[in-house]
Amino acid sequence: MQAARHAPLTDVVELSVSAWFYRNRTIAGFDNPARSLYVSVRELVENSLDACEDAGVLPDITVDLERVSPKRANNRIESEPQVFRLRVQDNGIGIPRDVIPRLIGKMLSGTKFTLRQSRGTFGLGGSLALLHGQVTTQQPVEVVTGTAGATEGTRVVMRLDIEKNEPVVIEEERTIKSPDEHGTAIAFYLEGDWLRSKRKIVEYFAQTSIIVPYASLTFRAPDGRTYTYPRVFHSLPRPPREMRPHPRGIDVETLKSMVTNTRKKTLLSFMTSSFQRVGKTTASGLLRYAGFDPEMPPSQLTDEDLVGLMRAMASYNGFMIPSSDSLSPAGEELLKAGLQRLNPDFVAVSQRAPSVHEGHPFIVEVGVAYGGQLEPGMRLYRFANRIPLLYDEGSDVSTRVIRELNLKNYGLRPDDPLAFLVHICSTRVPYKTVGKEYIGDVDAVRREIQLGLMACLRRIGESVRRKHRAQRQRKREDRLLRYYTFMACILSDATGRPVSTTRLFGGA
Amino acid sequence: MQAARHAPLTDVVELSVSAWFYRNRTIAGFDNPARSLYVSVRELVENSLDACEDAGVLPDITVDLERVSPKRANNRIESEPQVFRLRVQDNGIGIPRDVIPRLIGKMLSGTKFTLRQSRGTFGLGGSLALLHGQVTTQQPVEVVTGTAGATEGTRVVMRLDIEKNEPVVIEEERTIKSPDEHGTAIAFYLEGDWLRSKRKIVEYFAQTSIIVPYASLTFRAPDGRTYTYPRVFHSLPRPPREMRPHPRGIDVETLKSMVTNTRKKTLLSFMTSSFQRVGKTTASGLLRYAGFDPEMPPSQLTDEDLVGLMRAMASYNGFMIPSSDSLSPAGEELLKAGLQRLNPDFVAVSQRAPSVHEGHPFIVEVGVAYGGQLEPGMRLYRFANRIPLLYDEGSDVSTRVIRELNLKNYGLRPDDPLAFLVHICSTRVPYKTVGKEYIGDVDAVRREIQLGLMACLRRIGESVRRKHRAQRQRKREDRLLRYYTFMACILSDATGRPVSTTRLFGGA
Repeated sequence: MQAARHAPLTDVVELSVSAWFYRNRTIAGFDNPARSLYVSVRELVENSLDACEDAGVLPDITVDLERVSPKRANNRIESEPQVFRLRVQDNGIGIPRDVIPRLIGKMLSGTKFTLRQSRGTFGLGGSLALLHGQVTTQQPVEVVTGTAGATEGTRVVMRLDIEKNEPVVIEEERTIKSPDEHGTAIAFYLEGDWLRSKRKIVEYFAQTSIIVPYASLTFRAPDGRTYTYPRVFHSLPRPPREMRPHPRGIDVETLKSMVTNTRKKTLLSFMTSSFQRVGKTTASGLLRYAGFDPEMPPSQLTDEDLVGLMRAMASYNGFMIPSSDSLSPAGEELLKAGLQRLNPDFVAVSQRAPSVHEGHPFIVEVGVAYGGQLEPGMRLYRFANRIPLLYDEGSDVSTRVIRELNLKNYGLRPDDPLAFLVHICSTRVPYKTVGKEYIGDVDAVRREIQLGLMACLRRIGESVRRKHRAQRQRKREDRLLRYYTFMACILSDATGRPVSTTRLFGGA
Repeated sequence: MQAARHAPLTDVVELSVSAWFYRNRTIAGFDNPARSLYVSVRELVENSLDACEDAGVLPDITVDLERVSPKRANNRIESEPQVFRLRVQDNGIGIPRDVIPRLIGKMLSGTKFTLRQSRGTFGLGGSLALLHGQVTTQQPVEVVTGTAGATEGTRVVMRLDIEKNEPVVIEEERTIKSPDEHGTAIAFYLEGDWLRSKRKIVEYFAQTSIIVPYASLTFRAPDGRTYTYPRVFHSLPRPPREMRPHPRGIDVETLKSMVTNTRKKTLLSFMTSSFQRVGKTTASGLLRYAGFDPEMPPSQLTDEDLVGLMRAMASYNGFMIPSSDSLSPAGEELLKAGLQRLNPDFVAVSQRAPSVHEGHPFIVEVGVAYGGQLEPGMRLYRFANRIPLLYDEGSDVSTRVIRELNLKNYGLRPDDPLAFLVHICSTRVPYKTVGKEYIGDVDAVRREIQLGLMACLRRIGESVRRKHRAQRQRKREDRLLRYYTFMACILSDATGRPVSTTRLFGGA
């Protein structure tokens, strides 16, 4: 046996979560300066949109991305890295003074870990953007925020201690504001590549304005141009309500903590009080099925019991489907409006009924546009929880579905001018990457997209056929008209009496 | 202005890293029971392989996956979930008693965060597998381990506190062992789906034996079958050495901590002592370029200086390329042997020279096999740091490269029996997902794969053409032979004298 070549594992390294994500920031989309700039803008805008919808106000979001000359030790460096100041301001719910540092400067802490639809999923996109900024520029972050009703706001200048995953407040001061004002403005410096990310970033705002038409977005680009997307809808969609978890798809750990935290005295009342859409009948049905005494105190459940109960919940088929109150779909009217912006000839949209994956409700909304000012060939717009998805389209479930559509069945061809729109909203969107680039190939989701698109295509196909019929019809009439007119002239010559051609066609 | 619909963000949730990963385990490949079983086996096997190579011994790894009837509260549940006991035993370096809990039971702690090639990248695959097991079965984990030289080993039974990301030791005892014995055996229970994961798991072992032919692998499957992959190479490859970081691609945070930890008194000596392949000349060249006094004490560098220095390092082109000592490629001999197992007619392999992405060295090795027992059509085998990659082939950079290959140029067709092999080893493999499913489209990597495969295809194409020429040649000879034989017979009839056809072709 050979001797150990490396020291034994006495020195176990422990990484803080921020240090870990920082080392692996590529998995969150921070691959290169261009992508990092895009992701940073996107993450902050999405946090702002969520903050506004939490406050129940129509979002007013202003994004300033300005190029600054990088701070350098000398001026003789040829390949100049691009440094930007990114400032995102919203009129959202604002952040109370005492939680600012943790909420902004600490990873995996947030308010998004709830069972209602929200854009943030992983609770770290924003922090990662700030982290990226600090790592590339060593500049601190400035946060100015205030909540409704308060007469004072807060301005905090802070940095992140990556090794400890702790915020470090450098400066803090009160600001005077009116009680009506509320919202947050975050400003920080970061390295990026505007030229290579420009297209994506502008496209991101354009598509966001399609799926969030009740927001007014302003983007001041580094090249001096200002892109404004005014509000075209003037009411907020019904906000998603936070729901108790659905019993199916619950896992032991969650069940365990629910049991330890419940004040209920019997399993029956525990079931009815802790889960959504579980009444006395369902609860007792399940407990009978699982072989538990409804009167048993939850506290007496052993680990084995918990596993048994979880398994029973997973296999019991007497539950109602999850409520969709925790979702906030865009709605067909809005989708139609979005697709109309492409000025096509025909638009068809369809909202599917709520469905479930892994105990999480989801709703798929799809639309198809045809003709008009659309380019020939198929184009796909993907959205999830009101976020446009712009990267890795090839791996997305929608792309797979569209590839397999048999357009011939609808009298269409792949080189026809077609635009597809797919929006999935869910309490847990099955993203395949932390960067929220594309959606996994989940059977339930896939099926809904398929059925939705097929329904739309049928209607589009009809309209197209009708259009073609109408054209043929008109041609025939034209020919007839010319022929009759000719006859009429001949006859009128022969008879010497003028004839109005219109009368031939039953004109007065 | 409307009133806030939701409570203000006073209740900020903080998730422990394990709680976070547990909620988002899909991003690490734990999507469904089948995939989870595959990933669990894989992560533990890979940790074992690393442990053996750390110990500098030829790996002997035994994997037992046995189906156990799930513990249940009653017996009337129809849809029976599958529960397995997974046990992975290796003869690796073993784990010292005091670090077992942290190393096994705490996420983001490990020994993999070094600048040398290793299979583990994210330092949590193993822990996630154990977590998955605990969450689905509530059973504890059993670890039996011992290091070389010691006369005692340790047996620990433990669980993970997910909310705190802390290990909880339930049982601990010393075990008697001989000083020669060393290695680790981990056993735990988990839910899975054998039928749906069987193909991938068996394929995983088969492909691992191709890229790690110096290991002896034994896999006892739940269906009673035992798959054994004996050792065919009897020497370990040169182990990768841990290297100091390369100056290019270093980031401010890392630079900062290096500066704070260095004992050197001048920037010059700091540079030469902290980075790989930086001598006095290179160092002073860089410092001149960056505009720093070589005699300046590192401690005096301000944050701005650090950014300046980092930028200078990023743009200075006087550095040598990173050393490849931190890498351990498979080698052409091994690749050839691997492809020969497919029993093709022709094999061509090529190892590219070391290259760099983001300051990390990497080596691409490729091979192409043709004909023989290969099925018609193209097949791709992907490996990274001696790990077979079996999922998401479509998104992998190698797939993109192969799609764009113009086979015609080499006298080949897509429906020819072709097998491609691509192995990339690097101190940081640019995986796109935490699940280590596929490799991102990094230009440098892409180019190396392209050039390598083209080189192989040229040689394959040659051999194929030569083979076809030979076949045509033989056909012609056959025809001639038949013709001459016929003539010979006629003549011999005519002359009445027997004639040996062989003599016609210069036979004696």
